[in-house]
Amino acid sequence: MMKVLVTGGAGFIGSHLCDALLERGCDVWCLDNLWLGRERNIAHLAAVPTFHFIKLDLLERDGLRRLFAANGFDAVFHLAANSDIRAGTADTGLDQKLNFQTTVEVLEAMRAHGVPRLLFASTSAVFGEAEARLNEASGPLQPISFYGASKLAAEAYVSVYAHTLGLKATVLRFPNVVGERATHGAIYDFLAKLEKTPERLEVLGNGLQSKPYVYVGDLVAAMLLTFDARKDPLEVYHVAGEGSTSVRQIAEIVVAQSAHRHARIEYTGGDRGWPGDVPTFSYDTSRIRALGWRPQRDSTAAVTHAVRRIIETGF
Amino acid sequence: MMKVLVTGGAGFIGSHLCDALLERGCDVWCLDNLWLGRERNIAHLAAVPTFHFIKLDLLERDGLRRLFAANGFDAVFHLAANSDIRAGTADTGLDQKLNFQTTVEVLEAMRAHGVPRLLFASTSAVFGEAEARLNEASGPLQPISFYGASKLAAEAYVSVYAHTLGLKATVLRFPNVVGERATHGAIYDFLAKLEKTPERLEVLGNGLQSKPYVYVGDLVAAMLLTFDARKDPLEVYHVAGEGSTSVRQIAEIVVAQSAHRHARIEYTGGDRGWPGDVPTFSYDTSRIRALGWRPQRDSTAAVTHAVRRIIETGF
Repeated sequence: MMKVLVTGGAGFIGSHLCDALLERGCDVWCLDNLWLGRERNIAHLAAVPTFHFIKLDLLERDGLRRLFAANGFDAVFHLAANSDIRAGTADTGLDQKLNFQTTVEVLEAMRAHGVPRLLFASTSAVFGEAEARLNEASGPLQPISFYGASKLAAEAYVSVYAHTLGLKATVLRFPNVVGERATHGAIYDFLAKLEKTPERLEVLGNGLQSKPYVYVGDLVAAMLLTFDARKDPLEVYHVAGEGSTSVRQIAEIVVAQSAHRHARIEYTGGDRGWPGDVPTFSYDTSRIRALGWRPQRDSTAAVTHAVRRIIETGF
Repeated sequence: MMKVLVTGGAGFIGSHLCDALLERGCDVWCLDNLWLGRERNIAHLAAVPTFHFIKLDLLERDGLRRLFAANGFDAVFHLAANSDIRAGTADTGLDQKLNFQTTVEVLEAMRAHGVPRLLFASTSAVFGEAEARLNEASGPLQPISFYGASKLAAEAYVSVYAHTLGLKATVLRFPNVVGERATHGAIYDFLAKLEKTPERLEVLGNGLQSKPYVYVGDLVAAMLLTFDARKDPLEVYHVAGEGSTSVRQIAEIVVAQSAHRHARIEYTGGDRGWPGDVPTFSYDTSRIRALGWRPQRDSTAAVTHAVRRIIETGF
């Protein structure tokens, strides 16, 4: 039975990954400091004998080393991160600690204890203001957010550990992901705003920004598929939804699905929501498609399904 | 009079840059912790009234902030780094501290004190095992040394500070540089070995690795030219020598120029000297050439001149 450590395992994507790994028959250690992760995301797993929750911060080096020493992990899925781009703009040191340094700590622990396989959750934000259709070999990499910079710095360290220390690493760069258990993002923000002011929904920007969205279940499938397919020391994959969905469409879907379907949608104007947000963006996903990956839902269907699931399960 | 801070200013390249900036009429603050830098590299500047030497480690945050507060710098040339790729392989945390964290500290100090311009010394090692002819927009960036990973991480942070905090930054990626005051590298190693065993020179590998070398004076000219040409928040340039020179040629030039011209050259065999060393490599330098830069000496002339200057000035 494969023993897997999932960092950030009580978070949005991490908790869905734990579900899928348990379904596969893995022994799952879910590590989380519960800063963004939530115990309710994994409450349904409490009675599963192959599921182990560890409340630990990755920067607590001694605790991390003890955890690695006590269990012979076969693989690490490293998802722990500050996933909120805006928070990293307000505090320039935050992403360096939570995205970059945590990755270095995981890599060092893996090296010290001979763990051979890593999947690292990266991001389209490593590219900055890119205009061309981006594949895994594209450059330049000139991030415009502290989130993107810290993830690029982490990718650089994953690369050198993979190439020099015998680790096999998969780097998966994904764009916006939607689904139940999300802790932030446009859907979450809009639902929270509607709770406060049911008669109107204020949207930052002009609502014309459009991005491809992936439903979390399709992303988890991509993680498992690319993890299984590893051959070279370092394998990078892009994942993206089919089509794209504008902020305006998201607002309309949220209002239509909510209990406040007569709310007025108001736009503040301008072409983006905050500094560091990248307005347009396009991925070439032929590499992961060659492995057989296809999202079950296109971008707008993913958003619609996510809104429904979030309302059903509470937020 | 422009007030310029040169970090690593007592080092090999930094001390040559200080010379050139003083010749331009700048007021120069030379900061160095003297770990790799040497006082003898700047001893000839001690009596120059516009030259100021500060012995300080960039990781001493309070001292750095006091330095920035006391002087209104117009620009920083950030060269301080562990420039020894091999040392970074032995101690995986070394380059993170000396190359990445020092850069973050410099960026934060610049932000806190409103310093508007940066030149950052980066490296071809950000690319890893690249095969194509690399221009400034090339990818992927998959470093195979801790040196390259730490410099890529630093570039990522230069990018985000430049794009979000109003800084104008030039990133200059240069390959191997030769000249007097060098503290390591093939020429230095070979001369040191010949001092110990004048009758023979042992060379790691088969001596067939070939790289383009630039004489330090041509690199300093490239730094000043690209610094002056800045327009966008972030400008990246590649610099490389014309032609290339094999390790075998370097060994032969060193032996021929030295006092031990009858020494036997012996090769240990294999295609590279140490893990993380990149055997072959090619830069597209059309971007810097469009600014008018041309090296005065091609690669082998640069090596020959460097060997002569090193022997003349002592090592």
